[in-house]
Amino acid sequence: MSTTSIYDRGLDKNAANYAALSPLTFISWSAEVYPDRPAVIHGARHYTWQQTYTRTRQLGSALVRRGLRRGDTVSTMLANTPEAYEAHFGIAMAGAVLNALNTRQDADSIAYILQHAETKVLITDREFSPVIAAALAKLDVKPLVVDVLDPEYAGPGEPLGDLNYEALLAEGDPNFAWSLPNDEWDAISLNYTSGTTGRPKGVVYHHRGAYLTALSNVVESSLPRHMVYLWALPMFHCNGWCFPWSVAARSGINICLRKVTAAGMFDAIRQYKVTHYCGAPFVHSTLIEAPAEMRQGIEHKVSSLVGGAAPSQAMIEGMARIGIDLTHIYGLTEVYGPTAVCAKHEEWANLGSGAQAERNGRQGVRVMLEEGMKVLSPTTLEPVPNDGETMGEIMFRGNCTMKGYLKNPEATAEAFAGGWFHSGDLAVSDPDGYARIKDRSKDIIISGGENISSLEVEDTLYRHPAVLVAAVVALEDTRWGEVPCAFIEPRPNMSVSEEEIIAFCRARLAHFKAPKRVVVGVVPRTATGKIQKYVLRQQAKDDAASRR
Amino acid sequence: MSTTSIYDRGLDKNAANYAALSPLTFISWSAEVYPDRPAVIHGARHYTWQQTYTRTRQLGSALVRRGLRRGDTVSTMLANTPEAYEAHFGIAMAGAVLNALNTRQDADSIAYILQHAETKVLITDREFSPVIAAALAKLDVKPLVVDVLDPEYAGPGEPLGDLNYEALLAEGDPNFAWSLPNDEWDAISLNYTSGTTGRPKGVVYHHRGAYLTALSNVVESSLPRHMVYLWALPMFHCNGWCFPWSVAARSGINICLRKVTAAGMFDAIRQYKVTHYCGAPFVHSTLIEAPAEMRQGIEHKVSSLVGGAAPSQAMIEGMARIGIDLTHIYGLTEVYGPTAVCAKHEEWANLGSGAQAERNGRQGVRVMLEEGMKVLSPTTLEPVPNDGETMGEIMFRGNCTMKGYLKNPEATAEAFAGGWFHSGDLAVSDPDGYARIKDRSKDIIISGGENISSLEVEDTLYRHPAVLVAAVVALEDTRWGEVPCAFIEPRPNMSVSEEEIIAFCRARLAHFKAPKRVVVGVVPRTATGKIQKYVLRQQAKDDAASRR
Repeated sequence: MSTTSIYDRGLDKNAANYAALSPLTFISWSAEVYPDRPAVIHGARHYTWQQTYTRTRQLGSALVRRGLRRGDTVSTMLANTPEAYEAHFGIAMAGAVLNALNTRQDADSIAYILQHAETKVLITDREFSPVIAAALAKLDVKPLVVDVLDPEYAGPGEPLGDLNYEALLAEGDPNFAWSLPNDEWDAISLNYTSGTTGRPKGVVYHHRGAYLTALSNVVESSLPRHMVYLWALPMFHCNGWCFPWSVAARSGINICLRKVTAAGMFDAIRQYKVTHYCGAPFVHSTLIEAPAEMRQGIEHKVSSLVGGAAPSQAMIEGMARIGIDLTHIYGLTEVYGPTAVCAKHEEWANLGSGAQAERNGRQGVRVMLEEGMKVLSPTTLEPVPNDGETMGEIMFRGNCTMKGYLKNPEATAEAFAGGWFHSGDLAVSDPDGYARIKDRSKDIIISGGENISSLEVEDTLYRHPAVLVAAVVALEDTRWGEVPCAFIEPRPNMSVSEEEIIAFCRARLAHFKAPKRVVVGVVPRTATGKIQKYVLRQQAKDDAASRR
Repeated sequence: MSTTSIYDRGLDKNAANYAALSPLTFISWSAEVYPDRPAVIHGARHYTWQQTYTRTRQLGSALVRRGLRRGDTVSTMLANTPEAYEAHFGIAMAGAVLNALNTRQDADSIAYILQHAETKVLITDREFSPVIAAALAKLDVKPLVVDVLDPEYAGPGEPLGDLNYEALLAEGDPNFAWSLPNDEWDAISLNYTSGTTGRPKGVVYHHRGAYLTALSNVVESSLPRHMVYLWALPMFHCNGWCFPWSVAARSGINICLRKVTAAGMFDAIRQYKVTHYCGAPFVHSTLIEAPAEMRQGIEHKVSSLVGGAAPSQAMIEGMARIGIDLTHIYGLTEVYGPTAVCAKHEEWANLGSGAQAERNGRQGVRVMLEEGMKVLSPTTLEPVPNDGETMGEIMFRGNCTMKGYLKNPEATAEAFAGGWFHSGDLAVSDPDGYARIKDRSKDIIISGGENISSLEVEDTLYRHPAVLVAAVVALEDTRWGEVPCAFIEPRPNMSVSEEEIIAFCRARLAHFKAPKRVVVGVVPRTATGKIQKYVLRQQAKDDAASRR
């Protein structure tokens, strides 16, 4: 039985009607159509799209001349500078794969990653020379090391490489005739998940997924042409949620930023009329906490995305108060970053601010360019009912999902079991079909047989006027199995006691959900603002032991 | 020598990380996320996204139950009604291929197409029953005929089918579990080019191209979420330039329109706060020509695209005068419609209105999602210099290019010779890299060895205050080989003489470019507003013969 039709005959792919999807198409378009418009601004350095395109072609050409081949890895240890931006294009032009390192990592992790990724070239900013030197010292085979000497960086750090970045560019042909990959499934980048335990896993992205996720950002945030984008989110975090490619797709302006501070961000927003930025909750909190004077002179509309961790209701309300439009996105490294969005509904504007913040704080729905996201039973893979109560696991499927984990077929198979990517996040599905995370599977606290969502307790803690950062983890308990233990970082010049916090929670939560123990101090966070719960769990344990 | 890398191993496609690109993803998203928002409005009929999605699922299911299989053709003969919109989704859900017939075609052409496309089902609006009855009478094997009985249509025309559209939907399962195609290269639609000579050719679109072109419209026009789109452009024209899928991608509102009139359009713009529409030049001219009273009460911004034929400068200036934002797009059926765009530059705003219109009237550059468009030498396929003078042919390559011509491998191979789609349009490349059409290869007039661009002469004619429509074709001439012959349709209640027009042109053009003969009367146009130059060429010939 033939299943071919008249449409299957004589209508094949050819050079005229088929091209690999790749974000490289975006930068060449911007350079062709808007060559003289600004592309990247970093202090005194200003590059147009033509200039940025030329620099990326030089980078690609220089890497090829240095012997790089398709599928070789180039690692980078960079702040949000023009070089980090250029790496997102030039490395792919050489057919190579960008591995952007998290700059907060220690020498051991970096050495592990450079070995695992089989890195051939390492491009590193002088600021990170000490940790990089320590990492390199652990390697038997060293990559070619290229120093970035950023004039905007005045701190310590010696160059330690074979040549500097500008010298590397000078080796390249500014008219390099790069080509799209033969296969859009080819790898474009490699992002190691920080991993709460065990060795980091290397998440591989491909050209097709990078292209589609970059467009997904354009669609979901309705990014306008010539948008002005402030780099508050590190470009090493899921490739800056694929925004380097999105900004190229909109012929926008990248405003670089080495360090997130309220003054630095507000100054950039004012000076360059920034229209968009992204960041973890702490980035937004930084702006909310800043003195109102810092916001003076900013009259234009600024839109922002929050992700990387769930925003508290208090934070969402705070953003509304300072007049910055905020949308909550959700995702994981494995799904290119922002692959779910709490898409807004006009009628929510009629709700009170608390109810509005509660709606807007949910993980929401799939972005349109990811074909599936559902809350499924982890055992049957059947969708949970939209009752806002039945717990399931958020799972994704579609084109904005990774190729898999590098050199780790077992973990890849496990992550994709049953044809869905398993996020590990436990959630319910609300009556409108929006997902609402109850917890990471490992963050749920089981106390006397009852499930306690650490997020729910944290939401309550954030309502206390003295609380800046709150985190809740499970503490082993001989009677209840586990009980909630809270870590509180108070606002500057404010203090709070354990008793006061416990009483505050008991007044607002079922008693079994209130923390049994409260630790006041600095709450440890990763470079991307994620609270390191595995560190807190250990602290809670040690703390309990010391009190016994 | 192995060319595989670490990124090629254990990182294959699977159900979790790969899905066929298809615009069906867009409608399911809108129904999931914005189920209760309006999707399609047609007079008294209002459908939400949930309702439209349900109707398309019923359509898909009913077609499958009627025995349709992957790659079968469903033809439609429809005005811009909800049924035409639903056809763009429901037919694909059945794995079948939509062939939207041009409603101005004659019975012979329709019969030819139905036979050539091997149409299994024909969905036809009662208004077109006479011509469809005549076409069906010519067929040995008849398709299943389904009548659309639109309450908004009060004119003549008897149902002639086996059942009506609503009865067909009733046969379908509202929860039909359609699936994405196995291969995104599968055909989604079939569009016959009107063809100036010979039999029409069947241009085949695939799911991937429809998906990308729909997104391309979103990107190039920065279409906002919940846009309100007025259907002035027929949906049978390159699938309405892929806008049925774009509007679904933006959870927008489709305002249907059976007939283009100034009053009808302005009423819809006012009542529904239309934000966008597209159309051939005559659509826009209709609005420019309308009395100013018709525009009263319209204060919001309306954006429009013009294509299908090059807009005159006078028309571009007229649109600016009535305050509708206009962008010129260019393309052909073979490239899904709008695949080039005259992308605007802010600095053009500083030019005089004439110079601005001249910039904005060009064919421009590739849309970002089409990987290549260049003015190439038809012989060497080398790009012409950006000198605004050297003539070449516009060629396209990339994902927004057709699969090929149905059952016509010779024409397909010819169209794609050298790995580029040959548009047949002769153009120069301006210093900024924007293409400017000089003429269709067959529309160029060669007089005494000199090339005359009929477009250039037409641009001059449109500057005459009494000219509503102008067209220039070659007329055989014993002395010069060819000379320009102009056809003029005067504005209502105005008249103009042959002598006056010739004098007007001689004052503004090189004398050899001025028309030697001017015919005043109605200028024949196709359904989509394209002037039928082959008809004019014959008229010019007959006219010359009669005067001999």
